[in-house]
Amino acid sequence: MTELPDMTPDRRPGGRTARIRAQVLDAVRAELAERGHEGLTVEGVATRAGVHRATVYRRWRDVGGLLVDVIAAASEIDWQPPDTGSLRGDLTALNQEIQESLVVQPSLAVALMAASFHSEQAARAQTQLWTDRYAQCEILVERAVERGEPGVGHADPRSLLVAATAPLYHQMVLLRAAPDPQLPGRAAEAAVLAAAAGAFRVRREESA
Amino acid sequence: MTELPDMTPDRRPGGRTARIRAQVLDAVRAELAERGHEGLTVEGVATRAGVHRATVYRRWRDVGGLLVDVIAAASEIDWQPPDTGSLRGDLTALNQEIQESLVVQPSLAVALMAASFHSEQAARAQTQLWTDRYAQCEILVERAVERGEPGVGHADPRSLLVAATAPLYHQMVLLRAAPDPQLPGRAAEAAVLAAAAGAFRVRREESA
Repeated sequence: MTELPDMTPDRRPGGRTARIRAQVLDAVRAELAERGHEGLTVEGVATRAGVHRATVYRRWRDVGGLLVDVIAAASEIDWQPPDTGSLRGDLTALNQEIQESLVVQPSLAVALMAASFHSEQAARAQTQLWTDRYAQCEILVERAVERGEPGVGHADPRSLLVAATAPLYHQMVLLRAAPDPQLPGRAAEAAVLAAAAGAFRVRREESA
Repeated sequence: MTELPDMTPDRRPGGRTARIRAQVLDAVRAELAERGHEGLTVEGVATRAGVHRATVYRRWRDVGGLLVDVIAAASEIDWQPPDTGSLRGDLTALNQEIQESLVVQPSLAVALMAASFHSEQAARAQTQLWTDRYAQCEILVERAVERGEPGVGHADPRSLLVAATAPLYHQMVLLRAAPDPQLPGRAAEAAVLAAAAGAFRVRREESA
């Protein structure tokens, strides 16, 4: 869902500024994935990017600024949520995407989560990205409502989406379990069955 | 569930070794909560505990050793999962306990999670503690089976427990949302409804 490993920075042809940004953010991602947040330095990024340190300091100021811009770049990608024809299929595909981003070694998604525990700037940027991605995914629930799938008409989309995806993060990031190829589908199924049985109802104070 | 903020170290009367351990681990918890993993040093812990640095180095070696022992001390607590008379009630109570441990400022539980991203030792110890706590909580599902609650007889207890609790960690730790007093009950309800509708079925390969 964050799809960080596949993100491609803005590479508008002809823009020197855009080109330098792309080089620098590529370097941040590579350093972050290889060395983690603790090993990330402006100097290391500048060297890897082949860009003057002064340029990096001027534009991004510090490691926090680099992290924020990596996350901002992820939010600029034209990411589209899956569209498989059923809510269960969509949530399964979404969970597979999440699982892949967490399993890949080194995982930029995990490195950014780790960084967000230590950088308030990175934490705020990441929370914003996740909030945006969940908002984008609400269309999965809207489409299910249009198709007349059971229970979803009364469901708060965000609560349903969090229930469907949270077990992936919990197992992979917090419990550090081995990847389970069945988990994406099972977590999706549980959320869809719970919705059909009346869970995730919109609360009165939310709909006001 | 981790119940870290309330944990009381081993204070067997008369044991000087136990007393020093209690002082040192109290100091680790206080330093961790106030300064986070990055601010944790053997020197700071020794000073706060009023114990010779050499003693701390000899027994715990380094910050990793201190973190592991704090987590080990948590696993030594006589923690008991809730017993309210229904699975939904038990899971709600469990989630309330989890939410409290994550909301309290400063949260030792969150500090330990942050530390586990940077210390392989701490990560392994924390995974073991969580695995043990989930194993302890399986009795919630067993009691529900004995009471004849619907769906739970076919459910894999661990999958059900992870589905019930994961949204709490996801919202509070990863999405950094404001605490939602209704979330413990809503997440519990969703897991119970999903189980009643056939989710979390034990898989053939697991029961073999």
